[in-house]
Amino acid sequence: MRYLLTISYDGSDFYGFQRQNDLVTIQGEIEKALYTILQEDITICASGRTDAGVHALGQVAHFDTTKEIDNLDKFKYSLNSLLPKSIDILNVEPKSDDFHARYSAKKKTYIYKIYLSKTNEPLKRKYFHICSYELDISKMKEAIKAIIGEHDFSAFCVENLQIKSNVREIYKAYIEEKDNGKEIDIVLEGNGFLHNMVRSIAGTLVDVGRGRFEVEDMKKILDSKNHQKAGKTLDGCGLYLCSVNYNV
Amino acid sequence: MRYLLTISYDGSDFYGFQRQNDLVTIQGEIEKALYTILQEDITICASGRTDAGVHALGQVAHFDTTKEIDNLDKFKYSLNSLLPKSIDILNVEPKSDDFHARYSAKKKTYIYKIYLSKTNEPLKRKYFHICSYELDISKMKEAIKAIIGEHDFSAFCVENLQIKSNVREIYKAYIEEKDNGKEIDIVLEGNGFLHNMVRSIAGTLVDVGRGRFEVEDMKKILDSKNHQKAGKTLDGCGLYLCSVNYNV
Repeated sequence: MRYLLTISYDGSDFYGFQRQNDLVTIQGEIEKALYTILQEDITICASGRTDAGVHALGQVAHFDTTKEIDNLDKFKYSLNSLLPKSIDILNVEPKSDDFHARYSAKKKTYIYKIYLSKTNEPLKRKYFHICSYELDISKMKEAIKAIIGEHDFSAFCVENLQIKSNVREIYKAYIEEKDNGKEIDIVLEGNGFLHNMVRSIAGTLVDVGRGRFEVEDMKKILDSKNHQKAGKTLDGCGLYLCSVNYNV
Repeated sequence: MRYLLTISYDGSDFYGFQRQNDLVTIQGEIEKALYTILQEDITICASGRTDAGVHALGQVAHFDTTKEIDNLDKFKYSLNSLLPKSIDILNVEPKSDDFHARYSAKKKTYIYKIYLSKTNEPLKRKYFHICSYELDISKMKEAIKAIIGEHDFSAFCVENLQIKSNVREIYKAYIEEKDNGKEIDIVLEGNGFLHNMVRSIAGTLVDVGRGRFEVEDMKKILDSKNHQKAGKTLDGCGLYLCSVNYNV
């Protein structure tokens, strides 16, 4: 039997998604709770790993079990009561064998959150990239348009493995201002994302905003396929995996 | 020499403000950092302690030292570089001997933040009281008016010590809705607050909002001076000490 889990988590409490010996990870905690309930070793497969500090509002994972879960609500409740409070199972759903959390995914949405402040912002630092520079948001809004569409995103990927294709399609890319312009949300929707791609794009956009790059440089950097040309890859704490869609 | 510190902190990382052996507290961390810089034992005196989990945007404390601090900016920078990132010193200011962070305070502002959600909200649970009930905000806005003015707040105080006066004056008390009505901020300004007073008022207002109490009960509970009549004292994580004013 295959089941899908929709998961929200506060990444600041974990050493990333992926199970690691002796480190508290999201996968590790969920598999431990599943073992307690189902009394068999379970491996969950997520739509993608998230790095240390990265948050999720709607991560998706699947797992297989020999047991049939007859009451999904009760199962979800039991799972949440066993899990640390910084992980929340939002939904449990039976799926057919051909569903795969990673390979069946059609669309993913990420948000990268930046907070403009001259101080250290102790209450926000785990949930935003704190930026002390003045940013020209209108330039950032212009620059982000360059990444919409199908492109080779090698320039925004830290591990540039030649064996895999670095081509991805970005359906939507835009910037939202919140909290009287102090919060800047970079929203990206696409068919897939390379490792650190959102954080690298966000860092490059910040460089446009603070004047280190021109608006036109965004396209030049993308076309270069050279990660050395991109801006700094921003910290994981500002990144949120918002949703994974399986039907487009 | 007496100095004032304005401090912001994420209370979820500490066992409250007050120094405790073997536990990480805000006072303990600041005094440790001050010792490192000034090379003498320093005791800081805050405008008031905050409990475990309670946050501050503008806590104020003073301390005395035999050393003169000639460069306040550099001192602040050194202090912040020694402190954990969840504590931020916003301001350092020299003060005369008759200034006292607690006794000279004329006004304090607290906010209690509630987030309405049916799920566990892992990303908000350290920063809000998560409320799964539907709340009638208009009734809460009506009920909160009862506490404005000078009253004996014994009904909203957990430790009802007869020796001290439980009379305080509330200058302003109102409710702000944010995030499309999902966030409810209860804002209180007064000349002082009893232990757990804001959390007890917030809990009683939630009981009005969910219909356990009527709007008129707020005044009746206040007049009873009996804490048993009040609603549940809500958790510390929703509470923020916003500012302390020394001139009104």
